[in-house]
Amino acid sequence: MRIANIGEFALIERLRGLVAVERPDIIVGIGDDVAVLSLDGDQWLLATVDCQVEEVHFLRRAITPAQLGQRALAINLSDLAAMGGCPLFALVSLGLPSALDVVWVEELYHGLGMEAARHGVAIVGGNMTRSPGGIWIDVTVLGQVRRDEVVLRSGAQPGDQVLVTGQLGAAAAGLQLLLDPELTRVVGDHGPALTRHFTPTPRLAEARVIARSHQATAMIDLSDGLSSDIGHICVQSGVGVRLWAAELPVAPAARAIAAARGEPPWNIALAGGEDYELCFTAPPVAAASLAAAIQEQTGTPVTIVGEILPAAAGRWLRLPDGDAIPLASQGWDHFTR
Amino acid sequence: MRIANIGEFALIERLRGLVAVERPDIIVGIGDDVAVLSLDGDQWLLATVDCQVEEVHFLRRAITPAQLGQRALAINLSDLAAMGGCPLFALVSLGLPSALDVVWVEELYHGLGMEAARHGVAIVGGNMTRSPGGIWIDVTVLGQVRRDEVVLRSGAQPGDQVLVTGQLGAAAAGLQLLLDPELTRVVGDHGPALTRHFTPTPRLAEARVIARSHQATAMIDLSDGLSSDIGHICVQSGVGVRLWAAELPVAPAARAIAAARGEPPWNIALAGGEDYELCFTAPPVAAASLAAAIQEQTGTPVTIVGEILPAAAGRWLRLPDGDAIPLASQGWDHFTR
Repeated sequence: MRIANIGEFALIERLRGLVAVERPDIIVGIGDDVAVLSLDGDQWLLATVDCQVEEVHFLRRAITPAQLGQRALAINLSDLAAMGGCPLFALVSLGLPSALDVVWVEELYHGLGMEAARHGVAIVGGNMTRSPGGIWIDVTVLGQVRRDEVVLRSGAQPGDQVLVTGQLGAAAAGLQLLLDPELTRVVGDHGPALTRHFTPTPRLAEARVIARSHQATAMIDLSDGLSSDIGHICVQSGVGVRLWAAELPVAPAARAIAAARGEPPWNIALAGGEDYELCFTAPPVAAASLAAAIQEQTGTPVTIVGEILPAAAGRWLRLPDGDAIPLASQGWDHFTR
Repeated sequence: MRIANIGEFALIERLRGLVAVERPDIIVGIGDDVAVLSLDGDQWLLATVDCQVEEVHFLRRAITPAQLGQRALAINLSDLAAMGGCPLFALVSLGLPSALDVVWVEELYHGLGMEAARHGVAIVGGNMTRSPGGIWIDVTVLGQVRRDEVVLRSGAQPGDQVLVTGQLGAAAAGLQLLLDPELTRVVGDHGPALTRHFTPTPRLAEARVIARSHQATAMIDLSDGLSSDIGHICVQSGVGVRLWAAELPVAPAARAIAAARGEPPWNIALAGGEDYELCFTAPPVAAASLAAAIQEQTGTPVTIVGEILPAAAGRWLRLPDGDAIPLASQGWDHFTR
């Protein structure tokens, strides 16, 4: 049986069974994007790793090395943000073809260094190896979070509301603009979508407001797409969900592309990955004031887009006409798509 | 200018200049195999990452996936040992072809899990991505060391003696046995050399004896070969060195291969990488008793193989006849060989 037959998530479940151990110093282990670890002191250590692979995550002709460096770090910072954490250190492991130009690598590090400086992260080490295939950039980020401020995926309760930062579908719209130049005629300002596609913004400041509020019950960053990522909260929290299609904050470029294709605007917002916005849950009594506090302190809009249900109620998308359809996980799986 | 023109170490120096920052919480940053980081408490956090790449570090037909998993973790544990540290957690980032058999990945994790359990390490997360090329396994290990027990590369003093654990050249001999079946006739017992080549033993227990002794002034693990790795201690400590060819503990298989080829036995011990023994320095008054303590507590022999000189004296190999020749760095560079 090949990996392509079972996909990424089923494979991870099998591997977790082989090596998972119970230890008091492991708060969150395999299966999450971030490990939460207990050392000395009143902070927990956070550790996450994520990789950008040529021909899988990027095309060398389509992205500058500086953009790629910024992106490779930003997606890890986004994972740390989703725990409410503060990033501190990064390790950069590179696989590079021998024939690659040294200037390309220096530009990559320029992008890494700029993004690191922007968020107070120090690049403290890494590794470098020859790659007989294409380029890959594997970044590990370490950070901390106060024990009483960590936000896991496992705390959502029926009745909680579901919130998202920023807009959805922008990164997917940016990718569509690159793949289909015809679309450039239907999208007014391409800039925001392309920027979000190439160099997402990790929502660290927004996450700190959420963590300090002690109001959020669960949180995740939107890397695979809302319909898929909310599923992780549902599984970890043992709950169901109903998202409200009419409330989704669909990015203008995504809305324009959907209109040109005669599709409803919410599909690209639900299925499009790589927005790296935060999705979190909070009790109804706290949701609106928390959303307002985030917007006031960071300038980033926050939208209430649905509600948490009991697990038995399942996962649904309520359409604008009031009908509800099953919420399919339409996110990305490297191995099966 | 291509990477192949300047090599790994010159490239790392260029990149360090682009992103290195001075911060009080960074004890050792870019340029070492291990980052030493200050968080709360009386321990320092250690973080290291190292990668095994198909066709560069291993051939899929020559090593079992379980051996590869064991090896991928062991080489990182060896880096942590060289700081005197205790490993705690590992993150495993994989690049895998879609067509790879799931059982192969499970066997890899079996090897990772066995090695982790052997050394009290918990695999707490990682990442998995499709690789359009071959397999790669990038492992990050986190650990701790008491602030007063850390052993860096930078503390060697002229007059110190140079010590190594175990035997040298075994891993290189194992590789030679695989590459040239003719050699199997001249080597008696192939087992130890092949085992060392496929699945090196991280010298964690030996390192803890060294760290607790407070006697070692510098330490490194032998991944590239003694002639190259001692050079890192010389650069970081600002010293020179004289190694004693007649004292090098050359592994029997390496000695047999050298004899069959009419070469002196020390070349393979100096230039052969991947032994993952420890090389450390200590004042003459402490060296012999420290060596004895390690052997008594771990069973691993330790040999005094040279002495630290002032930087201006340079780096030398004293031959058995008393002549000294310049000690060339003959270690491995992925990009230029």
